[in-house]
Amino acid sequence: MSKILIRAMILPMTGPEDFYPEGEIALEGDRILSVGPNGSAPAGFVPDRILELPNDVVMPGLINAHTHAAMTMLRSYADDLPLMPWLQEKVWPFENKLSDEDIYWGTLLALAEMIQSGTTTMLDMYSGMNRVGDAVLEAGTRAVLSRGMIGNAPNGEKALREQIDLFERYHGAGDGKIRVMFGPHAPYTCSGEYLQRVKAEADRRGAGINIHLCETRDEINTINKQQGKTPVQWLNDLGIFEGHVVAAHCVHLTEQDMNILAEKKVAVAHNPESNMKLNSGTAPIPELLAKGIVVGLGTDGASSNNNLDLFGEMRSAAFQQKLRKDTTVLPAYQVLEMATVQGAKALGYQDVGMLAPGYKADLISINFDQPHFYPRFSIPAHLVYVAHAGDVRTMMVNGTFIMEERKLLTLDVKRICQEVEERAKRIANG
Amino acid sequence: MSKILIRAMILPMTGPEDFYPEGEIALEGDRILSVGPNGSAPAGFVPDRILELPNDVVMPGLINAHTHAAMTMLRSYADDLPLMPWLQEKVWPFENKLSDEDIYWGTLLALAEMIQSGTTTMLDMYSGMNRVGDAVLEAGTRAVLSRGMIGNAPNGEKALREQIDLFERYHGAGDGKIRVMFGPHAPYTCSGEYLQRVKAEADRRGAGINIHLCETRDEINTINKQQGKTPVQWLNDLGIFEGHVVAAHCVHLTEQDMNILAEKKVAVAHNPESNMKLNSGTAPIPELLAKGIVVGLGTDGASSNNNLDLFGEMRSAAFQQKLRKDTTVLPAYQVLEMATVQGAKALGYQDVGMLAPGYKADLISINFDQPHFYPRFSIPAHLVYVAHAGDVRTMMVNGTFIMEERKLLTLDVKRICQEVEERAKRIANG
Repeated sequence: MSKILIRAMILPMTGPEDFYPEGEIALEGDRILSVGPNGSAPAGFVPDRILELPNDVVMPGLINAHTHAAMTMLRSYADDLPLMPWLQEKVWPFENKLSDEDIYWGTLLALAEMIQSGTTTMLDMYSGMNRVGDAVLEAGTRAVLSRGMIGNAPNGEKALREQIDLFERYHGAGDGKIRVMFGPHAPYTCSGEYLQRVKAEADRRGAGINIHLCETRDEINTINKQQGKTPVQWLNDLGIFEGHVVAAHCVHLTEQDMNILAEKKVAVAHNPESNMKLNSGTAPIPELLAKGIVVGLGTDGASSNNNLDLFGEMRSAAFQQKLRKDTTVLPAYQVLEMATVQGAKALGYQDVGMLAPGYKADLISINFDQPHFYPRFSIPAHLVYVAHAGDVRTMMVNGTFIMEERKLLTLDVKRICQEVEERAKRIANG
Repeated sequence: MSKILIRAMILPMTGPEDFYPEGEIALEGDRILSVGPNGSAPAGFVPDRILELPNDVVMPGLINAHTHAAMTMLRSYADDLPLMPWLQEKVWPFENKLSDEDIYWGTLLALAEMIQSGTTTMLDMYSGMNRVGDAVLEAGTRAVLSRGMIGNAPNGEKALREQIDLFERYHGAGDGKIRVMFGPHAPYTCSGEYLQRVKAEADRRGAGINIHLCETRDEINTINKQQGKTPVQWLNDLGIFEGHVVAAHCVHLTEQDMNILAEKKVAVAHNPESNMKLNSGTAPIPELLAKGIVVGLGTDGASSNNNLDLFGEMRSAAFQQKLRKDTTVLPAYQVLEMATVQGAKALGYQDVGMLAPGYKADLISINFDQPHFYPRFSIPAHLVYVAHAGDVRTMMVNGTFIMEERKLLTLDVKRICQEVEERAKRIANG
């Protein structure tokens, strides 16, 4: 097993006080052996390679807890429109024309962008997921994949078969870097019977559920009219919340809804930029955190954001809550936790999201030797309020370098950009 | 005079339809000679240098319509605190210890960051402004400088003398790249008599006024209690709005306030990220634009943002309004206008903010050959919703290259970062 030593400023995300201005991290194979100040690696540890990054901050790779990676194909295709015309006249007709190969290339583009902006793990929901799995295996990143299933659509049954096929082929693939969850799309696109069948199929395989929940006011009104209760109450009554569940958005919640999510240990994927850009609203994140609910951070798809940059998402998460509540809510370190440890927990990991002995070697380095990172009063505040995607220099996933000096080591970026440009324009032009 | 030809994708900001996917721009001395498709340069134009940037978008340099540059010294020094303890226990005590030399170095750091994030012109308000002028002359950027004057403070008279001295020494300096406005701090920090004296001194010199206005609910309540009217009504009654005025923030306005600003042609500098982070509120920007008011975009100081990146500010401006109103307000091109043409107009320029014949040669190039800029459906949407500071490759101000390949050509970045680090830490440690 390869042994690597990295010397840098280290922010392990193991607690607000933990920071090593001159630190070192020892890696063996796909795991972290030790993290601490210089000289803390175990006696007798002889690295095959020493990487010196004295002006970089090394931290856990970021976790994107909600995205639709292949939607990079629609990036900046349509913006600034009212919601329904945007969906009905632009997004859906475009998506209907996407082949599995288009989805494969769109996902590769997304992965290239995510790597360059520090994201080591994503929770993805889309169709054509077997090819998404192939793209993830090529990129070498970590991912939880789910087949977005619209039970009310004509292909609802086919989608469920594809979801099961995805689980059987890709769960545990890439030395365990890929996991599979079941992805019923949302309460307003699936019947109760369909949701329960999906849940039963997931349970049979020990898989979790990934679902959109309480994203818009319309959704709340629709479910209330149909079921006489909130979407959260309805899903809870259906038994969907027994077991591992990631609920994306959760913008419109009652106090009782929040208590149900807390009691059932439902994890929330917060997407502040999508919620702002699509006028969905502001999720009650400080309230959720106060109830002990695990909250990760997501970018949503590139058609509603329009990038996959979690640094921007961290800033927006903090700003949006400070605007809604007061200046003290969501302090910088808590936002960093959402993008790392909390995101990993949300996705069901017990050995991802921190730099600690025994954890997976998923890490990034950020180039702090730039004007906007001076003076260095607070590393967490700099990371949340100052940093941008372009500052990420290095990425390692599962003990393997994926990017160095911003150069991607696993993907042919030029080829990917050209393929997506041609495919997206061809689809847009009919 | 030097002659330069740049070939690139060109977004001149002369109108929403204007874009040259294979364009060229001819420059002579400090001015733009021509902008158009390849081959459009005047017959007989023989450039000394041809710069080929086929994968870059060239656009006007960004205008930061409100900042306190030297406050980079306080970047991430204190965050996530209630407003008054943050000011009284952290910001003000730190600022009281700043020497003019500290302000000089803090401004150099700000300029380095602004250049790397595409800002060619700033409207600055602070103290120690003569040294700020020196820093701007070194950097080679364009700037409008104002001495922030707190009339109610013991040094109110001294500040006004320094403001006049700043005007006499620096207005028109650097081949006209520097201009000076008068900077009474805010309605709640100056008496009516002081504001009128400042206005008279400014008028005597043909200078405009730069002032904070209607930033917080507290300010509205204070002025209402003192004067029985809104801050806008009060300043209008005092005659402050006769002539060129830039009012920063304008978050809390009545309908009548907006009509006064429109009638008096007061320009507004909008600071969305500062307004969110400090819980000031959401300025009614679509309403101001609908009344024909000129609105520029500002970052505010780095202690309340915490960077000087106008790309992030553009995203936040759009997101904040879409959250407040609906998905259609502040479409991407309009936001770009705020950061370029509108910002330049706000600051009083008639030949800055667009790429057009006769305009000043202030431009930037953005490296579009990166995964996050594919597919290329909409250049304006990409610039507002996708781009980040790290994407800026080239900057020219007044016909002179200031940055190429992200390398600063006028400033010693390493030295500046070290100086600021030492000075800021020394001040913080007492």
